[in-house]
Amino acid sequence: MRPTIHSTMAEAVAGIPDGASLMLPGFGGAGTPWNLLTALYHQGAKDLTIIANGAGGTATDPRIKGAGDIIDEERVVRLIASFTAGTHPSRVPKAEQLVRDGEMAAELLPQGTLAERIRAGGAGIPAFYTPAGVGTMLAEKKEHRSFGGREYILEEALTADYALIRAHRADEAGNLVFRRAARNFNPIMAMAARHTIVEVEEPIVPAGALDPDEIHLPGVYVHSLVSIASDGVLRVARAPARPAPPVVEAAPGERRPLTREQIASVIGRRLQPGWIANLGVGMPTLASSYVDRSLGVTLTSENGVIGYAELATEEESDPDVVNAGGQNVTLIPGATFVHHADSFALIRRGLVDVTVLGAYEVAADGSFANWRMSTEPFDELGGIGGAMDLVADAKQIWVAMEHTTRDGAPRLLERCTLPLTSPRGVTLVVTDLAVLAIRDGRFVIEEVAPGYTAKEIVALTGGPVEVSPDVRPIAL
Amino acid sequence: MRPTIHSTMAEAVAGIPDGASLMLPGFGGAGTPWNLLTALYHQGAKDLTIIANGAGGTATDPRIKGAGDIIDEERVVRLIASFTAGTHPSRVPKAEQLVRDGEMAAELLPQGTLAERIRAGGAGIPAFYTPAGVGTMLAEKKEHRSFGGREYILEEALTADYALIRAHRADEAGNLVFRRAARNFNPIMAMAARHTIVEVEEPIVPAGALDPDEIHLPGVYVHSLVSIASDGVLRVARAPARPAPPVVEAAPGERRPLTREQIASVIGRRLQPGWIANLGVGMPTLASSYVDRSLGVTLTSENGVIGYAELATEEESDPDVVNAGGQNVTLIPGATFVHHADSFALIRRGLVDVTVLGAYEVAADGSFANWRMSTEPFDELGGIGGAMDLVADAKQIWVAMEHTTRDGAPRLLERCTLPLTSPRGVTLVVTDLAVLAIRDGRFVIEEVAPGYTAKEIVALTGGPVEVSPDVRPIAL
Repeated sequence: MRPTIHSTMAEAVAGIPDGASLMLPGFGGAGTPWNLLTALYHQGAKDLTIIANGAGGTATDPRIKGAGDIIDEERVVRLIASFTAGTHPSRVPKAEQLVRDGEMAAELLPQGTLAERIRAGGAGIPAFYTPAGVGTMLAEKKEHRSFGGREYILEEALTADYALIRAHRADEAGNLVFRRAARNFNPIMAMAARHTIVEVEEPIVPAGALDPDEIHLPGVYVHSLVSIASDGVLRVARAPARPAPPVVEAAPGERRPLTREQIASVIGRRLQPGWIANLGVGMPTLASSYVDRSLGVTLTSENGVIGYAELATEEESDPDVVNAGGQNVTLIPGATFVHHADSFALIRRGLVDVTVLGAYEVAADGSFANWRMSTEPFDELGGIGGAMDLVADAKQIWVAMEHTTRDGAPRLLERCTLPLTSPRGVTLVVTDLAVLAIRDGRFVIEEVAPGYTAKEIVALTGGPVEVSPDVRPIAL
Repeated sequence: MRPTIHSTMAEAVAGIPDGASLMLPGFGGAGTPWNLLTALYHQGAKDLTIIANGAGGTATDPRIKGAGDIIDEERVVRLIASFTAGTHPSRVPKAEQLVRDGEMAAELLPQGTLAERIRAGGAGIPAFYTPAGVGTMLAEKKEHRSFGGREYILEEALTADYALIRAHRADEAGNLVFRRAARNFNPIMAMAARHTIVEVEEPIVPAGALDPDEIHLPGVYVHSLVSIASDGVLRVARAPARPAPPVVEAAPGERRPLTREQIASVIGRRLQPGWIANLGVGMPTLASSYVDRSLGVTLTSENGVIGYAELATEEESDPDVVNAGGQNVTLIPGATFVHHADSFALIRRGLVDVTVLGAYEVAADGSFANWRMSTEPFDELGGIGGAMDLVADAKQIWVAMEHTTRDGAPRLLERCTLPLTSPRGVTLVVTDLAVLAIRDGRFVIEEVAPGYTAKEIVALTGGPVEVSPDVRPIAL
């Protein structure tokens, strides 16, 4: 049957009952159904289950509500996500406090596992095996099995009663076109839900007005449509990221740890011609502004951007073009976009030459820990995002991090003390004090920050460490 | 790295060594890389493994070679397909004879399982569970497991050394756009292969010339490109299907079995408003020409067409718009296309209200057999196509078939004697002599062909059978 076309967001969400399960797309503010979420907030449904990347974004405009606002009102009883806390700092205590108080159940998943479980739900596949998370706390209770000599864990499909979707264009048959990185979870959640409600940015056009080949999601998955043009024009504007400032060289003899931008520039200049690189949130994404464009490096992000360039200025900024950190970026010629399941397909397929991630701890065995956790105990709360999927299959793992804690204790250790993101695989660490390789269970100091001696770096490094015979200052 | 752009097809396939595994897309002539296959035929590589929907189409133009021609030359040692024989009758004996002689190994798979195994290979998923084929000969040696009270079988991923792909447009970054149902296996095979070679129908454009949102396959999966515009213009023209002729009513009192068109019209008129229907090869696809367009029925085909209308005339004919039988069809406004894995996702997700298939035998327990097999013994050769996937999850299964064999023996039986396509599920059978429901393990005769009595139909029907109290002549 053709989908129902509603004239208001309130009408579109009116039928969602207490106790419903909802799939909510969106990543970095792009592709989030803010209008439907605002209507749902006012509609009042409670005892909800939410399946989403994170515990819910919020908007700075107080008229606009997000999943985080619904969680804050204690209307969510279960959350399945790769971040159990929202990205807004104020959301951390509330969502996680609800879990610790037993008011909300939470299941934390690697982001690629979340996407693939949703894709499986939409594809009638009850369960599948995946490498993401093997060797970490998240895999402890899961069934393991070996294929081709490698360990995988069993994951089951996710479906939901409703998906609230945001599309760019739609026709009256329900066919949808998404825009740029706003595609993210939208098509796969529409496929996995029993009832799909769509807010559409443009006016809805007659069936046949869209070219059949440009449609991203067939209308057979869509049940209700409402155009933003017919009911309000709520959009969430994001502050564009500022371009990374130029790297300032230290004066001769000056003793100075690297700035975040300098760490990023060391990373950016190490990417090799033709590589496909995935840059994680924080210093790694900053590295995109220091990559020589002539080398043909393809920067990808787990939200489905393939071929971004650098942090965008205000004029260049497009709210639907964001990197892993939700920052606005520019695109190279030939850039394209895929949905979240296809994005992690690319990652698991082994096409990523290097993934660069931030970390709290790295050990000499190549393991590292980068979960964002608010407090101990380590109870599977916090944020894992796509890191576990990325490290499972990237050809190389590099880490960008602070060399020590604020108290001066080493973050480079013999063994990690925090829950692992990966039990192995890191080969390069770039810190504010040094560039170190990890080889044969040892840190090898290859480059040191301006004014530092290798001996000083050894003293600030835990675990087995040696100095490369041709150790040199970091070129800035 | 940017893909290599070759000037000839021969250059593009020159590096394929003996012993390589190849994924070869194409369905009903659409999306088949005829130019690359012709070059491969002349290149001479042997001991090949082929992963494809069928044992290989052939072209009527003798300059154009297909996989079938390479199999005929005994250069293929292993075939993984949903049809171990080609669709051209002359191919049946050769391909299957090679298997029986031990010259070629063959693995026959349900088409949706084939597509999903390729998709898994391209997504770094080593194995998954699927319902297709449970209860049939094809599942006998497979590992079973229950999820949510239902039985599934374990299937492992497929990858290959090479995929030979046919795209409509490409840019210099390797980004691809497919056209209509020519998409079929192309994107998923490109994702699953270690080396992807693409023939492109249009001249290759600079990176950035395609809109990022219209790209179907990111260029990161593409290694070699060659435009048909730069090396020959080989295209395979298909004879367009003729529209089904009008249904002629029998004169009063005339005793006449239904024609194929009449059987199709009975099916077509039984489809209900808003249904999603999948019509199998033969009489079922013919039914598309008898569906009342005003009812909003969506006809889908496992090759990824969503929303076709009827068999096309020569003027309407588009070689990239074909149904399950490879016949050219027209489209309804709002029609769209997905790749093969997404097409079977839709099917397994349970969105198909009815699937209509041909059959050799149907039993009173709702089981049926419709494998195309050349000869006994039933050794997993022949053709299964998408039937096992379709019957696993369609809400209803209808069968269109001949009531008896040429010798007058019943094809409606207490138990099927041929290998099953499904062990259950058929609820309606339309034959040349009657319309029968299957209820509670019995055939129920509801309508009879002009001039026949219910008693005559009972005599021609095996298994438990009864006559509906309101039995009537079939309305034509």
